[in-house]
Order: sequence, then C-alpha cells, then structure tokens
Amino acid sequence: MGKNILVAHGGGPTAVINCSLQGVVEAARSAGFDGSIYAARFGAEGILAGDLIDLTDVPAAAIARLSHTPASAIGSCRRKLTDADYPTVLETLKRFDIGCFFYNGGNDSMDTCHKVNELARREGLDVQVIGIPKTMDNDLDLTDHCPGFGSAARYAALSSAELALDASALPIHVVVLELMGRNAGWVTAASALAGRLTGCPVLTYLPEVPVDEDRMLADVERTYARGQGLLVTVSEGLCGLDGKPLADTGIVDGFGHTVPGGTAQHITDQIIQKLGLKSRAEKPGLLGRASIPYQSSTDRAEAYAVGQYAVEAALKGESGYMVAINAVRTPAYRADLSLVPLAKVANVEKKFPLEWIADGNQIADAFFDYAMPLMGERFPEYALLR
Amino acid sequence: MGKNILVAHGGGPTAVINCSLQGVVEAARSAGFDGSIYAARFGAEGILAGDLIDLTDVPAAAIARLSHTPASAIGSCRRKLTDADYPTVLETLKRFDIGCFFYNGGNDSMDTCHKVNELARREGLDVQVIGIPKTMDNDLDLTDHCPGFGSAARYAALSSAELALDASALPIHVVVLELMGRNAGWVTAASALAGRLTGCPVLTYLPEVPVDEDRMLADVERTYARGQGLLVTVSEGLCGLDGKPLADTGIVDGFGHTVPGGTAQHITDQIIQKLGLKSRAEKPGLLGRASIPYQSSTDRAEAYAVGQYAVEAALKGESGYMVAINAVRTPAYRADLSLVPLAKVANVEKKFPLEWIADGNQIADAFFDYAMPLMGERFPEYALLR
Repeated sequence: MGKNILVAHGGGPTAVINCSLQGVVEAARSAGFDGSIYAARFGAEGILAGDLIDLTDVPAAAIARLSHTPASAIGSCRRKLTDADYPTVLETLKRFDIGCFFYNGGNDSMDTCHKVNELARREGLDVQVIGIPKTMDNDLDLTDHCPGFGSAARYAALSSAELALDASALPIHVVVLELMGRNAGWVTAASALAGRLTGCPVLTYLPEVPVDEDRMLADVERTYARGQGLLVTVSEGLCGLDGKPLADTGIVDGFGHTVPGGTAQHITDQIIQKLGLKSRAEKPGLLGRASIPYQSSTDRAEAYAVGQYAVEAALKGESGYMVAINAVRTPAYRADLSLVPLAKVANVEKKFPLEWIADGNQIADAFFDYAMPLMGERFPEYALLR
Repeated sequence: MGKNILVAHGGGPTAVINCSLQGVVEAARSAGFDGSIYAARFGAEGILAGDLIDLTDVPAAAIARLSHTPASAIGSCRRKLTDADYPTVLETLKRFDIGCFFYNGGNDSMDTCHKVNELARREGLDVQVIGIPKTMDNDLDLTDHCPGFGSAARYAALSSAELALDASALPIHVVVLELMGRNAGWVTAASALAGRLTGCPVLTYLPEVPVDEDRMLADVERTYARGQGLLVTVSEGLCGLDGKPLADTGIVDGFGHTVPGGTAQHITDQIIQKLGLKSRAEKPGLLGRASIPYQSSTDRAEAYAVGQYAVEAALKGESGYMVAINAVRTPAYRADLSLVPLAKVANVEKKFPLEWIADGNQIADAFFDYAMPLMGERFPEYALLR
C-alpha cells in the first residue's frame, strides 16, 4: 500500500463537509498513520493538476476549527471527470505515493470514486478507495440519510418558522421562500415543520409533484384569507404540469445540469398580478448550505464519524466502498456506520416518497419521524402572545 | 395617572423587538406595578380597535421566552395614523385607564408617539408616553445606534462571510447578496466585514452612493479575475446615477414607501449578460431581521434595557421622550441610556456617513470601530487551509 493519504471534495459544499475532513485527519493521526496527509486543492482540479495541500503538519487547533468552518476549507469543483482524465488521476496517485484515497461527495462524486477504484485495481495500484457521502439534497441511495442534509433541513425548518412568524406578525404579505433542491424535495419538506413549530399557515411545494399553478394560487388565496399571514415554501426546481421548471437561471453547471432559481419570484409575481395581494420572495440560496449557526449537532457529529470510519476502513484494507449511515428511530434515534459498494450508489438518485406529500402542499408526519432526529438539538419554544 | 400600562409595536419587527417587550413586562413586575399590562394586538390597529392582549398574568416562563422569539409576539402593523385617528387612540387610552403608554418603533412610530403625547397633554389626560427605539435600519437620530441593528449587522456580516467562503471554495460564480435597507446602508455596510473575516474578495454597495453600473461591472470583472471567487453585497435600495432604484417590487407599503427588492437579481442578470460570467443572486430578505441564531448578544441585552428603562422613566413621571443609547468605545465598549425629546427624533433619518465609503465599494475601518461592539459575541475563527 502506498504511504500517503489523499482526500478530495466534489460538488457543492455542505455546512458539515469540513467536519468529515476533520474526521479524516484526526482519525489518521489517532491511528498513528505516519505518511503524509494531502488534500486536493479544489477537488478534481487539484487532483488533475497535481496541486495538493499538505495537511500533515497543520496544528491540531486549526484542524479543530474545521467543525465550524463553512464551505470547503480545501476547495471543491464541479468538474465531471471524463475517461480521458482518469490516467492523469492515477498519475497523481502514483506520483504522491497515495495509499488511501477518500472522495467526499454526492452522486457524481461516487461515480468518480467508483471509476478510480476500478481503474486502480485494473492497473494493480495498491490504493484503497473509499467514498465519503455528502449532499444536502439527501438523494444518495443505500444510506439512511446523507451528511449535510440534517443541517440544511434545520436551516429550512428554523428559517421557515422565523419567516412564518414574521408573516403572521405583520400580515400584509404572502411570503414565498425558495429553498435548494434541484430534483429532490428533502430539504424543502423540512420547511413544513414551521407550521408545527408556530401554528402559522404554511404551504409547501416539492419538485416531486408537478404543480398546477391555478390550483396553487387558489390555495394561496384561501389560506391567506384566514388573516394570519401566509408562508409558501418551494423547491427551486419546482415544475409545472408540463414538467418544465417554473423558472431557471439560464445557467448550466459543470455537470451539465441546469441551475434552478427564481421560482419564488415567479410565484410572487403571479400572486401580485393574479390575486392582487402583496407578496415578497425570499431566496437565501447558498446560505442554506453554508450557515454555521443553523448547523445540526447530529449532522456535525455524523459527518465527523463518516470521515473517521472511512480512514479506519481504508487502513483495514477495504476499497471500493462508500460509508453508509444505518439508523433506527425507535425507541430512540441510534445510528451506526457500514460500507456499501460504490458500484451500487453511483449515479442513483433517492427520491422523496410521494406518499409523504398530501394535497400537493402538506407534508406527512412520517417525514418528520424520519427527519427530526437528523436536525440536531431541540427546536426553540417560542412565546406566542397574540 | 391612569392605572394600567399599554405597549405597542409599530412597523417591521427586528430580531430583538420582543426583548424590549420582555424588558417592559419584567420591569413593571419588578417595580411592583399593580395595574394591568396590556399589549396592542397588531400595533396601531389594535389601539384603534380597542383590541388589547392582557399580559398581566402571563407566566414568567412565557415572558422569558420572548428573548428568542422572532418577529413580534404581539403583532405589529404598517398603518400610519392620520389626524382623524388620534381621537380614537385617546379613547382607547381612557377606556383602558392607561397611565403609561410605550410605543416601540422607528421614525414613523416616534412621530405617532410624539403626537399622542402632545394630544394627551392638551386634553389633560394623565398618561406618560415614552418611545422605545427599534429599527434594524439604524436610522434613528439622537441615539448612538438602534436596538435591532446589532443583530441585523451580525446577520449581514456572518452570512456574508459564509457566502464569501462558499464563493471562493467553488469559484465558478459571482455571488450577489441583497440585504435590507431602503435608504440607509448601515446593515449592508456590516457585510463588508466578510472580507476581513475570510480574506475573500467582497465588493459592497450602499444606497447612499448612486452607482455607475458600467463601473460596477468593470470592478466585478477585475476582482473576479483574481480567481478567488467574488461576493458582491448590495442594499435593496441601491440607486443608479439617475437617482432611481435599480429595481423595486412594484409594491407601496402602508407608510407610502415603495418596497425595494430585486436589486441583486438585476445585477446578476447584468453580470451574466454583459460579462458572460456565471452569477447567482441571493436574497435572504426578512430572514435578516427575523433570524434568532444570528442574534447579537449585545443587541439582545440593550433591547431589553431600553424597554426596562422606558418603564422606569414613565413610573417616575417622565413623558414625551424616546429612550436613547449613549456609547463610548474606548478603552472598551460601554453604553448607558437617557431620554431625548420625541419632537427631536420624529421623522429625522440618520444617514450612513459618506466618508466611510471608499472607492464606491469599500467600507472604512471607522465603521467597524463603530459597529463591531454592537454585533455581540466574538466572531468565529475559521480554518482556511487552501
């Protein structure tokens, strides 16, 4: 086995991606690993360019700060590796004498990870390849949930509660909140918790159900008429009955996906024009994945643990796996970790269960049974005196 | 003096407006006040309708929860009282035997408060009228700063740091962040702290300086070319060289002000179309005044103190004043409270000093000397390994 470790980030960061990095570095140090610990600068770009950051001698105090550092401390990218790139990847692994390669990412990154493992095996390279799961979208298969989701869900739930209270304290607007999630509504679903936390009316629309805009506007009008204000929460990737997004930014990302956005503003425009109500659209956007004050403590701990587990598995000689989280929720939430074959998770997208969506805009308790333990510390109890 | 207390909220809430309410209720209880404590349901609307909430027997534990309850726990409104309304206001004060009237708000509310005081004196009503300052915009005169500003500034600074790190970790976008502030750039100025906290490039545009869009685009292009990503922060009320807002929502609020919004999206569209760069606009909007996790501890304590001080002043027989905060910053931050005549603060708007803006998009250290102590607990130290 090569002597050194290489860790890389792929795709968009989460609020806890650096916690996994912390887990990798601290686990290697605890295990007495005596090689170098490298990180790819800006993910695949750094691997291809042989541009690595040497973390071996970074002081423990700086590594500890990773737990509350937003974005990716080592950089990431959205470059999808092509067949032509893989020989260069192997070249870097050889050149830096890498024995353990950890790739932290979502679907696309697990595909990369899988291909690197296959190729390394074929070429007889002695490197252990382990995928570390990460995506706020929560759409990786074969794991109960993904590190990054719990914090994004907490952000969606708490921000929505705060906005719902604002909308009902000064009930002159319909507030429409846009949340991230291209194809999967996991994060937006968490925003429905606002109704339960505050008693304020909340309508929630996920990308899994094509939306009939006329019906949506009728629901908005009827619910707003109750006089308690109204919060409408929508996924950025929400589609109309024709299956096309209600809005997009006109941008295509490095993976070839259209970048969604503008959905809330579109709905707000309709509410103003067709219902004659005041409305405002809010779009915290990237803040939903970068905000540290809304980080979930459970998510933080689990993100750390998957990084740690990846190192332990690689040092035991495992390769070609992603770390998965297995969880039970009764009588109390408990999670443990295991390995699942990369081949099985690569490029598979876990959808939000349609049976958890009622009347097109209400989220079933079953979702909250699933998601609440992932969102960390207890939610605040508010003083509602009106 | 009438036997009872009435407290009301005017205009938009802040992250700490309920702390002032907590201060009023707890100060009255501490002083052994034995009348009833009423709150107007939805501000001026509740006063006019005689629709009051009786807080007298609300348990202490519920009152304590006000410190972390977003929005207004008793409701607010944007109704600007007209001359025709004031007799009805006095009617409510008489009917509920009000001896102390506290109005918590910004410029417009201090004007209302002033008129109620004048009229009460003229009519020989024995009521003490005290204004409690509140506005995230920080534009009230004769006070060092306004409760609500410190938390909004902390939100702007920390959120911007998180976004700047995201933009530099995955440097494929110019991220444009829109922050609240119709005419005054106090809150948006705080976002410039992101550059100091992260070392990432940040350009900040305030409504006090009409913006030359061509020059702005040239600055964006040049700064983005450094390759570290770029965060651009803008006030929602930003104006072009013609003195008109770059964008607005097409809505006019109850005070007759045009509701700004869409400025970041407008700039993003220009960056995409004219520079050919990827760009995304984020607009947390009302979250900037509602977010409890970003609340400033200093702001929370001061908002409580101004409510408490208002009660103490009224019980001593003072009337026709607003509570003001006086602060010194050297050798350490220290604040105390005093009373300033309502007549002098009503309808006066404190502008951001132009000399604190350099090159149209950089904020001077003098602003941070002013604002840092108001933003509460120490800012986190991040791990930047790139």
